[in-house]
Amino acid sequence: MISRYGQLLQEGLKLDMSRGKPSKAQLDMVSDILTVLTDADQCVLNGQDTRNYGDLAGLRCCREYWADVLGCKPEQTFVGGNASLGLMHDLICRAYTHGLKDSERPWCKEERVKFLCPSPGYDRHFLITEHFGFELITVPMHPDGPDMDIIEELVKDPTVKGVWCVPKYSNPQGYIYSDDTIARFANLKPAAPDFAIMWDNAYCVHEFDGDFKPFPDIISMCEAAGRPNMVYEFASTSKITFPGAGISVMASSEENIRYHTKLVGIQTISYDKVNQLRHVRYLKDRAHTIELMKKHAQIMAPKFEMVLKILRSELTNKGIAHWHHPQGGYFICVAAMPGTAKRTLELCKKAGVTFTPAGATYPYGHDPHDSMIRLAPSYPPLEELEKAMMVFTTCLKIAALEKYLGIHIID
Amino acid sequence: MISRYGQLLQEGLKLDMSRGKPSKAQLDMVSDILTVLTDADQCVLNGQDTRNYGDLAGLRCCREYWADVLGCKPEQTFVGGNASLGLMHDLICRAYTHGLKDSERPWCKEERVKFLCPSPGYDRHFLITEHFGFELITVPMHPDGPDMDIIEELVKDPTVKGVWCVPKYSNPQGYIYSDDTIARFANLKPAAPDFAIMWDNAYCVHEFDGDFKPFPDIISMCEAAGRPNMVYEFASTSKITFPGAGISVMASSEENIRYHTKLVGIQTISYDKVNQLRHVRYLKDRAHTIELMKKHAQIMAPKFEMVLKILRSELTNKGIAHWHHPQGGYFICVAAMPGTAKRTLELCKKAGVTFTPAGATYPYGHDPHDSMIRLAPSYPPLEELEKAMMVFTTCLKIAALEKYLGIHIID
Repeated sequence: MISRYGQLLQEGLKLDMSRGKPSKAQLDMVSDILTVLTDADQCVLNGQDTRNYGDLAGLRCCREYWADVLGCKPEQTFVGGNASLGLMHDLICRAYTHGLKDSERPWCKEERVKFLCPSPGYDRHFLITEHFGFELITVPMHPDGPDMDIIEELVKDPTVKGVWCVPKYSNPQGYIYSDDTIARFANLKPAAPDFAIMWDNAYCVHEFDGDFKPFPDIISMCEAAGRPNMVYEFASTSKITFPGAGISVMASSEENIRYHTKLVGIQTISYDKVNQLRHVRYLKDRAHTIELMKKHAQIMAPKFEMVLKILRSELTNKGIAHWHHPQGGYFICVAAMPGTAKRTLELCKKAGVTFTPAGATYPYGHDPHDSMIRLAPSYPPLEELEKAMMVFTTCLKIAALEKYLGIHIID
Repeated sequence: MISRYGQLLQEGLKLDMSRGKPSKAQLDMVSDILTVLTDADQCVLNGQDTRNYGDLAGLRCCREYWADVLGCKPEQTFVGGNASLGLMHDLICRAYTHGLKDSERPWCKEERVKFLCPSPGYDRHFLITEHFGFELITVPMHPDGPDMDIIEELVKDPTVKGVWCVPKYSNPQGYIYSDDTIARFANLKPAAPDFAIMWDNAYCVHEFDGDFKPFPDIISMCEAAGRPNMVYEFASTSKITFPGAGISVMASSEENIRYHTKLVGIQTISYDKVNQLRHVRYLKDRAHTIELMKKHAQIMAPKFEMVLKILRSELTNKGIAHWHHPQGGYFICVAAMPGTAKRTLELCKKAGVTFTPAGATYPYGHDPHDSMIRLAPSYPPLEELEKAMMVFTTCLKIAALEKYLGIHIID
């Protein structure tokens, strides 16, 4: 093991598995989208010119597209720019500066604001709420979703203003929230009137193993439970077409969408409607999008299989790591033996392989057990992936051995 | 005049001159931009894939493009999405939530914030600062720019945190700030360490009459004057390519750009780089952009000429209105006899012609003299424009007559 590490060091690798980026093959596969709108006339739709100003909440056909994908109504959608992260940030920012629809005051005027962070979770979510000075509360994740007993208890505190969720193929574990978990979210009765469920459905159609799994419409569920303004759902085409040049959506109650559209009207005149139209022409509807996702799956599946195969062959039954086998999303999360995650990634880095920093999947970048490691298999080609995984499993084993022995074997 | 108004009423017109929108002819003229990027390989630039995540401050080639247009350095630019308004809003919003580079505290923690609004000015600017609860201070506009004697006096107040400027072809009067005015801006010594000059160079290459007029680089001027972080310049391609689907830029000191890029990193992973590359390929550089603007001018000039001709023939030497003859930009501003602007536009509306609401060009939508009317000739075809201007001049004359008589002639 030690000599294998020595060999790996000699290879002078430079590999990156840190981010959930689609691969070049995936981007090439969807690059036909560049030619769906090529002349002036195609940009005019029912007399409306997508090239010009206007239509702040998005083209009607694009709102219909997202309503179809998410199972809600077009009036419940707001189409944004190329990043759903921007929509999430801007929503939290508006809560801070002006308050949400049902806020008693802007959150910047609250003495304290707490936000629930099911962890491990998505670092960029946690960063947004940290950025605005909120107190981040870690909530444990289970294979059926966040610990709802704890969440139901915590939301009795009126300073708890919201929760981050990735309900389908959670980042990073790849869990799918159970129907029961989702129902408990919709039926939450938080003390804060403006409690916000940030429902980031980033991987809503992103199966790489098996058929599309339908998901319930959280918006109508919250409405049925009597709190229609409690949830904000987000999605984007970042992992359907181009990560850098797609479109995004926020979905919520019609009342919320009207409220936020008015405030966004201060910020901009409209988002990029030519790109909205380009996407609707290319993706058509949910059924057609799911067909496209099967082609992505053909590129993604072998990479996940490779990673899982190496994890199995190198780490099974050694008691030093376990992981979930996801069927969609962009990540595999390895729970290393407590106290070994940082050391594992330090050793990987020495050998030229970069992963998401240990701790990143927890609030404030601090994993209390120093255990969770997020693997992002999508970007590197298969041969690089294999090499990176050999480095990873070797380093994880060395870190575990060092932990047992209580000394560093490698300088 | 009264009978002419009666005739116009009968025609059942429905015309809109309210917004500075490019016309269909202009959009058609630039629609070749839809085909400059049509295959996958064209999206990869020096090994970097514009389709994927990354490059938050913008593609290098796109930063170079804007540096060429604005006469600054690429490192002094940050490329945004399709709306420079969004960059301006977000900058003011960050000042509010976190403070600017040289702020002592976030502006939301200040007891009061005042913002200078040279007026008449751009309603959407004023709305942003009103939205964040700042006190808007009206500063008079002259043909050589804002009244600098007043501004130099006002900035001695440390609660005065910034000023809105449209230095070239000011919205709505079409004035160009003189070299002396610009030098006085660069040499301002505001009491607030984080005073921000919001330099919206929206019409930097937007001549429709005569050759391109060079403009000084305010960023290096502020640097030379010892306050490099005081100015934020903005521009976009909204009136060069597509209003709804262009790219935008913020330019400032390198220190400011680094500071804000870090904060924008919480909000998004990158703006639309495929569209950035599309624009750079299409617009190439400043010289080529100016050539394109000459083609826009060929469409714009006859419209402005028509409006000015009708203003001259109908209103000259009557003592009821005056106006400036601009050589670029998107507006003509008519100063009607005090107390007649609202009534003029009310009469126009009855006859089916919509203009920017009277007062909109002043803070809080209130023109103290009820005099300024913004005309936006760019969008309607010539024949509609002629009709709309006949309505406008007729209504303005009736409003003036009513003002003299002290009664309403028209119900």
